[in-house]
Amino acid sequence: MEDSLPSTSPYLTAIDLLRETAPLVQCLTNSVVMEITANVLLAAGASPAMADTPEESAEFAAVADGVLINPGTPSAEQYAGMREAIRGAVGAGTPWVMDPVAAGGLVHRTMFLRSVLDAHPAAIRGNASEIVALAGHSTGGRGVDSTEAVIEALPAAQELAIRTGGVIAVSGPRDLIVSSGRVTWLKSGDPLMQRVIGTGCSLGALTAAYLALPGLKPHDAVLAAHAHAGAAGQVAARRAQAPGSFAVAWIDALYLLTSAEIAELTTVKESA
Amino acid sequence: MEDSLPSTSPYLTAIDLLRETAPLVQCLTNSVVMEITANVLLAAGASPAMADTPEESAEFAAVADGVLINPGTPSAEQYAGMREAIRGAVGAGTPWVMDPVAAGGLVHRTMFLRSVLDAHPAAIRGNASEIVALAGHSTGGRGVDSTEAVIEALPAAQELAIRTGGVIAVSGPRDLIVSSGRVTWLKSGDPLMQRVIGTGCSLGALTAAYLALPGLKPHDAVLAAHAHAGAAGQVAARRAQAPGSFAVAWIDALYLLTSAEIAELTTVKESA
Amino acid sequence: MEDSLPSTSPYLTAIDLLRETAPLVQCLTNSVVMEITANVLLAAGASPAMADTPEESAEFAAVADGVLINPGTPSAEQYAGMREAIRGAVGAGTPWVMDPVAAGGLVHRTMFLRSVLDAHPAAIRGNASEIVALAGHSTGGRGVDSTEAVIEALPAAQELAIRTGGVIAVSGPRDLIVSSGRVTWLKSGDPLMQRVIGTGCSLGALTAAYLALPGLKPHDAVLAAHAHAGAAGQVAARRAQAPGSFAVAWIDALYLLTSAEIAELTTVKESA
Repeated sequence: MEDSLPSTSPYLTAIDLLRETAPLVQCLTNSVVMEITANVLLAAGASPAMADTPEESAEFAAVADGVLINPGTPSAEQYAGMREAIRGAVGAGTPWVMDPVAAGGLVHRTMFLRSVLDAHPAAIRGNASEIVALAGHSTGGRGVDSTEAVIEALPAAQELAIRTGGVIAVSGPRDLIVSSGRVTWLKSGDPLMQRVIGTGCSLGALTAAYLALPGLKPHDAVLAAHAHAGAAGQVAARRAQAPGSFAVAWIDALYLLTSAEIAELTTVKESA
Repeated sequence: MEDSLPSTSPYLTAIDLLRETAPLVQCLTNSVVMEITANVLLAAGASPAMADTPEESAEFAAVADGVLINPGTPSAEQYAGMREAIRGAVGAGTPWVMDPVAAGGLVHRTMFLRSVLDAHPAAIRGNASEIVALAGHSTGGRGVDSTEAVIEALPAAQELAIRTGGVIAVSGPRDLIVSSGRVTWLKSGDPLMQRVIGTGCSLGALTAAYLALPGLKPHDAVLAAHAHAGAAGQVAARRAQAPGSFAVAWIDALYLLTSAEIAELTTVKESA
Repeated sequence: MEDSLPSTSPYLTAIDLLRETAPLVQCLTNSVVMEITANVLLAAGASPAMADTPEESAEFAAVADGVLINPGTPSAEQYAGMREAIRGAVGAGTPWVMDPVAAGGLVHRTMFLRSVLDAHPAAIRGNASEIVALAGHSTGGRGVDSTEAVIEALPAAQELAIRTGGVIAVSGPRDLIVSSGRVTWLKSGDPLMQRVIGTGCSLGALTAAYLALPGLKPHDAVLAAHAHAGAAGQVAARRAQAPGSFAVAWIDALYLLTSAEIAELTTVKESA
């Protein structure tokens, strides 16, 4: 069963709340995408902070509004920082998001990701292969490319949603957002997003920003983040046909988008 | 008492000298802004180098023309590299700039920053909260956002100027530049600079570049760096209304600006 | 003796093969250029992966199609990762490329680079100073700027080609590509490429991508990578006169270029 949502849906108005409250998001992420991640947060209306050392991470997570954990290029010290940040976030009740980048494809990080799965991430955002591998259903893809179709990750996502109590988002041509008792499909975005590094990784950070907003259900927060990023991709594709100028236009659109444009550009279907 | 400076002021002609001499600036900076920092130096006319390991930092600082120390995401190894770079810079008489990013907000880096304060930085560039916290006047802001007005940092800046013998720059809507016996206010820049990560951090590197120029007083060098970056922001704001295209236009303007345009766009007031 | 190549030369058609096969390139590179390196690979048609820790590097190099080693900001852990990646690449027969960034200028990395020279890099790409220093002919340049003319690096390049069995590429106003028994000069590119950080470093990654293509001689693969990057620079220079917009246009051109345009824009001369 599928229904279209009314345009007054909470996921649509969240963008205004994001800009008003400017949540502070601490990102422990890979060295490749740190800059674009910070720029995405700034353009969207949030505040980035990238403190990621073992000495500072717990201290910072306690004052941050949201935390992102993305072990894309994880040094031993950054792993220690990530454990500290999760400890600080859990202690302070700060929502944290896991991006299981290349889970399944690489043994060491997969072990780390599974070891922190029970620290209650508010959301997990990955591609189909990563979500499937994280749930232990397969050994996953080759690097960061998804080799599974999004629909095939539904059982894994549902299992992870029940296990963690959080929201599981599977990125793809259509995004799948799953929490206990709710399954939402989102159609948005543009294929050129795959040709710009960090569009997915920074979506993890944006998800943490939306999860920090007061009065918004976590499922709607995750949906709002994906719709914001995806709709910005559609706006960018009107202005740019190649990845250099597309990346610039995408950042611009994250800043300029209105909730009315997101409503017009995205299609959301709930399926029980 | 306030006076407008004549357009032949040394801070205005310094941009030509920068392009002629292309000083080599070694940046030990945070992982988030390394790329934009290098691009800012290249666009402005300087040469970047990012050697930051303990093994190479002192060796490099001895041949560099200026050094930037910015512990934004400081690993243990990078701290060791920073101490080595400062040692090398002091030994060779290379001017070094401290960017006390998030001083006060985080204990570990604040201790580090204070521990190297007596190694005579030629300049310290931060926001009001950071300068106040570095001087020990308060516990500072939340992350990297300034929670203090620039004017409130004047006593702390004066104290640090006397203690270090260097130039203290406080970034804000108007920049405050302080050295022993001289206080300068600079009006330049555009609010969109706050929506692009690294505009402040790369200004630290640009400050080190200007400090390397022969025949320029350190106070004028710091002023020149801030005017160059700020005026470029104003030029960029004419071409771009959102942060993605603004960032591109800002880099372009750093490259294309003339001293006449800087004179036209910036306002400088000296106050005794 | 010099000859122009016919436009059906293998180096010209390789761009289509690159886009069809989308080789996976593992980059162990410096923190400054990770993002642009990944974006260059994506725009050109390859797939980037940046796994660089000691725990994961050998595992990944065995599944990657090509590997880049660029010790621009080498932590102790990254050196260990680089050794592992080379071990994994050699074991699996994956071609690897060395970018000897700042060789000669800095003792520690020069020792590392020489220590892995006998692990058969498929290609070495650097500027004249770096190639000369790597061969032990001089102590090289100051930082990453070349202080030697390209032609002066010819004997060093020939010596390295014989010693490693690989292809040696010397970047400059004209690029010099040398392998055992073959010397090629390539005229392409634009001076603005020197004002954007990472155009050279990401060319190292692109070289690894081309070396992964089936049925292409390594010498032609290295030539194709340089022609692709250089011709994109020429296209970008038509659209942009300053480094911010030039960088965006360069990425666009890497994505949009055709082999016919590369043939038109580049000049290749073989000299026995």
